[in-house]
Amino acid sequence: VPIGIGDDCAMISPPAGAAILTSVDTFTEGVHFFSGTNPKSIGHKALAVNLSDLAACGAQPLGCLLALSLPTIDDIWLDEFSQGFRALASAHGCPLIGGDTTRSAPGSGVSITVTVFGMVPDPSMVIRRNTAQVGDDIWIADSLGAAAAAVAVRYQRLSPNQLNLLACDHALDYPQPQLLLGQSLRKIASAAIDVSDGLVADLTHILRASAAVDASANSIDPSLGTSLGACLQARAIPVDIALHALPERQALNLALYGGDDYRLCFTASPKNQQTIQNIAQTISIPLHRIGRIVATAGVTLEQRDANESLQELGYEHFR
Amino acid sequence: VPIGIGDDCAMISPPAGAAILTSVDTFTEGVHFFSGTNPKSIGHKALAVNLSDLAACGAQPLGCLLALSLPTIDDIWLDEFSQGFRALASAHGCPLIGGDTTRSAPGSGVSITVTVFGMVPDPSMVIRRNTAQVGDDIWIADSLGAAAAAVAVRYQRLSPNQLNLLACDHALDYPQPQLLLGQSLRKIASAAIDVSDGLVADLTHILRASAAVDASANSIDPSLGTSLGACLQARAIPVDIALHALPERQALNLALYGGDDYRLCFTASPKNQQTIQNIAQTISIPLHRIGRIVATAGVTLEQRDANESLQELGYEHFR
Repeated sequence: VPIGIGDDCAMISPPAGAAILTSVDTFTEGVHFFSGTNPKSIGHKALAVNLSDLAACGAQPLGCLLALSLPTIDDIWLDEFSQGFRALASAHGCPLIGGDTTRSAPGSGVSITVTVFGMVPDPSMVIRRNTAQVGDDIWIADSLGAAAAAVAVRYQRLSPNQLNLLACDHALDYPQPQLLLGQSLRKIASAAIDVSDGLVADLTHILRASAAVDASANSIDPSLGTSLGACLQARAIPVDIALHALPERQALNLALYGGDDYRLCFTASPKNQQTIQNIAQTISIPLHRIGRIVATAGVTLEQRDANESLQELGYEHFR
Repeated sequence: VPIGIGDDCAMISPPAGAAILTSVDTFTEGVHFFSGTNPKSIGHKALAVNLSDLAACGAQPLGCLLALSLPTIDDIWLDEFSQGFRALASAHGCPLIGGDTTRSAPGSGVSITVTVFGMVPDPSMVIRRNTAQVGDDIWIADSLGAAAAAVAVRYQRLSPNQLNLLACDHALDYPQPQLLLGQSLRKIASAAIDVSDGLVADLTHILRASAAVDASANSIDPSLGTSLGACLQARAIPVDIALHALPERQALNLALYGGDDYRLCFTASPKNQQTIQNIAQTISIPLHRIGRIVATAGVTLEQRDANESLQELGYEHFR
């Protein structure tokens, strides 16, 4: 039984042998979300991005802490914020067990820092990001690009005419952490990450972390550079259906470089292909095999006509 | 072995049967600390206030997460901040295992949210704040009032002439979380809290929380109000020696109502008096028996000439 809000600390009593996973993210008005964003979405997303980190590790949520900095007490705003936060917390069994509410700095807006806790039954079940191997398949869950399209529209870099804008806005404002998928991939995936910065950028995080671990295991100087790369098939990248009226390459670029989708990208031995397809059926999330880990550094895109070397282009949150 | 910075989550593997305690606090420029405060002090204090919550629960630190919002990247500032943070983390065996660094909202300053994790070997060893009993002694560790005097000087509400200002400033900027004391009080203290809002205010938190638990255990409507109070002896309150040149009542008021001292205030059965004195000797922190829990609501101060009913006057951080 966890001790809830009201004591100096909150308490979690994990089962014997369990490992506790934890993550923290700050979500600030004018930096991570636009002023005027629906407070329900802010409450949802501040928790969702953290739950997504638990998902990437294969963890089951246990609870969360909420540190809220507010310029003023606005009851309507707070009520809507809480609705968004609590609905997601409740859907994933992640009770709010403590927190801190303070006045934000003079002249500044809302800032939210959420800490989540989760568990895996034993430490060997954690899915890491630094354990991908040459020859592993690369998988992505569901679809990519819709959230990035919504951001591009809000910045007037993309016309809404060729989009399902409602679907794109929903993808940006209400990302769904893929917790069940993460838990199903324990001992199946060799490495995983949630796509927050963009597929190419986050895949590069897996490649670099895994190459560094390889180098260190083989007593190679890690500064000598990565020997792991990824080869992606252009036709296999699951561009979100909300983008299908866009020119093909434009849609593909949103899927490759756009962030904020919070889909799981994972690697796995080819011998697990059937198991992974079974998981996809069981949890009703399409899982797409989009490429393979190779021994040559960099991310390459295989296309009908020519192969292309992809730049690592991170998604700079609203900057 | 905890997984450190660099993965989606940080990992803690607690011993079987352990309970995990966690706490979060936000520390914002212009709200919780003055602009221009020494960054080393900011780093120290942002962690110290959280470690103090672990201390009040009797927990041993396991690790912490740091969410840092910065207006700009100032390497000198960051270096000094890190020195303050890491020195305290290292002194208490509380490694930084993860975090998030983001740009702060346009026009605003630094904001720091620290989450700490600690453990007790089993859940029955957690010290709560809602378990004080009528007849228990009330104890306070070390001394009170120095941090509040420093705040009053900075607001020009108190002249520095009659103070050891250096000692007061140090108490405010470098509070020492009493972790060893908290751990020593497991199964000895009936309830504990760290004095952040002021002795009277924090003691009132213990009284209200404990009265509510009593009422609920005896099927009494908790809204009927508290039946727990505290009777304090004025001469037993350990006013900090840095305040001894002040008029007696002024110094006493700083000790009673001033916040930011982060000393542990705890209650214990009178049969534990000798054990508690032994703990004081072992860990070299003076422990003062300052009063008793009574069945009459409110906090009363017994003085040579007359008894006085004390107002609950919380310490409003810099407001």
